Amino acid sequence: MIQDKKFTSSNLQQFAQSIFTKIGFSSEDATTIAQALIMANLRGVDTHGVNRIPLYLKFLKTGAMNPNPHIHIINDSPAVAVLEADRASGPVAMKVAQKIILEKAKATGIGLVMIRQTTHTAALGYYTNQLAQEGLISIAMTASKPLMNYFGAKGAGVSTAPISIAVPGPAHDPIVLDMSTGAISYGMLLQHKSLNQPIPSGLAQDDFGNPTTDPSKATIPMPLGGPKGSGLALMIELISAIAVSNPLIAEYFSNSPNAKRHSQNAWLLGIDTYRFCNKETFQKDVLATINGIKSLPVDMEVGEILAPGERGNRMRDRRLIEGVPIPEGVLQELGEIAAHFNIQMPVHIA
Amino acid sequence: MIQDKKFTSSNLQQFAQSIFTKIGFSSEDATTIAQALIMANLRGVDTHGVNRIPLYLKFLKTGAMNPNPHIHIINDSPAVAVLEADRASGPVAMKVAQKIILEKAKATGIGLVMIRQTTHTAALGYYTNQLAQEGLISIAMTASKPLMNYFGAKGAGVSTAPISIAVPGPAHDPIVLDMSTGAISYGMLLQHKSLNQPIPSGLAQDDFGNPTTDPSKATIPMPLGGPKGSGLALMIELISAIAVSNPLIAEYFSNSPNAKRHSQNAWLLGIDTYRFCNKETFQKDVLATINGIKSLPVDMEVGEILAPGERGNRMRDRRLIEGVPIPEGVLQELGEIAAHFNIQMPVHIA
Repeated sequence: MIQDKKFTSSNLQQFAQSIFTKIGFSSEDATTIAQALIMANLRGVDTHGVNRIPLYLKFLKTGAMNPNPHIHIINDSPAVAVLEADRASGPVAMKVAQKIILEKAKATGIGLVMIRQTTHTAALGYYTNQLAQEGLISIAMTASKPLMNYFGAKGAGVSTAPISIAVPGPAHDPIVLDMSTGAISYGMLLQHKSLNQPIPSGLAQDDFGNPTTDPSKATIPMPLGGPKGSGLALMIELISAIAVSNPLIAEYFSNSPNAKRHSQNAWLLGIDTYRFCNKETFQKDVLATINGIKSLPVDMEVGEILAPGERGNRMRDRRLIEGVPIPEGVLQELGEIAAHFNIQMPVHIA
Repeated sequence: MIQDKKFTSSNLQQFAQSIFTKIGFSSEDATTIAQALIMANLRGVDTHGVNRIPLYLKFLKTGAMNPNPHIHIINDSPAVAVLEADRASGPVAMKVAQKIILEKAKATGIGLVMIRQTTHTAALGYYTNQLAQEGLISIAMTASKPLMNYFGAKGAGVSTAPISIAVPGPAHDPIVLDMSTGAISYGMLLQHKSLNQPIPSGLAQDDFGNPTTDPSKATIPMPLGGPKGSGLALMIELISAIAVSNPLIAEYFSNSPNAKRHSQNAWLLGIDTYRFCNKETFQKDVLATINGIKSLPVDMEVGEILAPGERGNRMRDRRLIEGVPIPEGVLQELGEIAAHFNIQMPVHIA
């Protein structure tokens, strides 16, 4: 088996920034987007890394994403704002939201920003992690167009609506949960397809909403735990999309010309933790909680007891040293884009 | 098979109130607690209904619950409060929290109350439903002592930490999701035990943390979707318990004399929905979303496509007319308590 080529994160960062600048983003926004993608790569969430660059091009071409958005608050209150993202890239809109949240949380104890019409929010844990590093307890959710099954139905009715929760950690790294509401991710279905591996039963439907284990036919992931996963995904749509009057599921089922166009809404909240409890006590209690759980006997089938985000932190520390592996197929796609825009491909280190 | 006796909800309400008054609650609190339990019974959540009355007695006897709590705000900000519940019964503490949330949401757009040291919070959807009826988007969570497995461990490391999300509905009833983070509830394990039915594989561990399908040995429910369910449960503990300095998991694993004593913390949030979007548009969009999903072909293995809470609403409407069935075993327990306190048992209607 051929080893993937590896790249330093700073080389990847520079490369991605160059492309984003070339295709119309401001230099500041290009940096912001590249950082979000490369942090996903560093943490091993390679489905949300530089492999998404071709998707960004597609979004710009179809008009789904706006490289020069007019991001502005359309509804404000002391602790909550509705932010019109004007089809900004997710990382760009979320950065504006984070700033508002920090201000509101300082003023009132909590800040919530409901973001309307963003595109490709990227890995949610990235944003909650950053807020937690500022001392905030943070919760984030995103709603997208249907692609996951709704319990009791045949076919897609909801998105795999992710949810992330982060708290400041006892050491430098926050504790960050970042999960989708699906029993299997859409990316995993694609991976089974490319490797022609059968999909475990109960995890997917085909285009007609029939259960399947055939990787060439599986297109619709099933929800986590049936009604719980799809119920959670529906509620995420109701609280993040409908409260900002950008209903995605309703639009998907309508005859609107934009029915199937990519669009998202995001929901980002932060609580000013140490206004409500002592910092040292909080950190001590988080540590004691995790250590308590880790003191249990290990299930050898799993091999290890990990806190949410711990695996990603470890991967990041390793990849910062050893480099980020990029599969040949992704490199080829990126190579074509680089050639088209006359940009140098990054140099690999191994 | 013998049919369970049925009772009107008002007769059950009166009966439960009488007991709660006799055992030391104020008349107002007795009414509040009875309402929460009987609404659970009406909605078919019989694990959280009048069958819990014996548990209340036990909690009072052991001192885990305080019938005359000094509930007070210990930390306040414009949008967030920490409420010391002083081991109040859940429904009593949550009622105080709801009032604070309504005020704060009116003032700042959002209200969050983190409730410290409550006991037996009862069905979370009851509280989010009530806030949604007032026009608020609501989210609630509760943390308890460990009883559910943590992914990768043998044994209990987290609670089945429930989460509820509610939004105002297009008609009278809000849309309410109320779910635990477990793959199976603790109550369901007990039910399999009493009926001597094997438990489907992968859903439970025994006292030693080994997987089991034997209903007489299964004591620990597994988390929903492995790391997702137990990760969510852990985050609920971190944001609801540790932020109010009442860490339950850490205490459980300590040598404290209260290590295993029942205690909970609750987290209740409300957003002033119609400050941020038009009410008619919101209601129309909620309806279109649910109708869109219901327009999908039905999976005949499930039989029906339901919105979160819809089954419970239907059950409530039916039980309001036909009465609430109470199993003979529960009636017997309640009969002993009634006799002890010289209270009349409610008259059954069928």
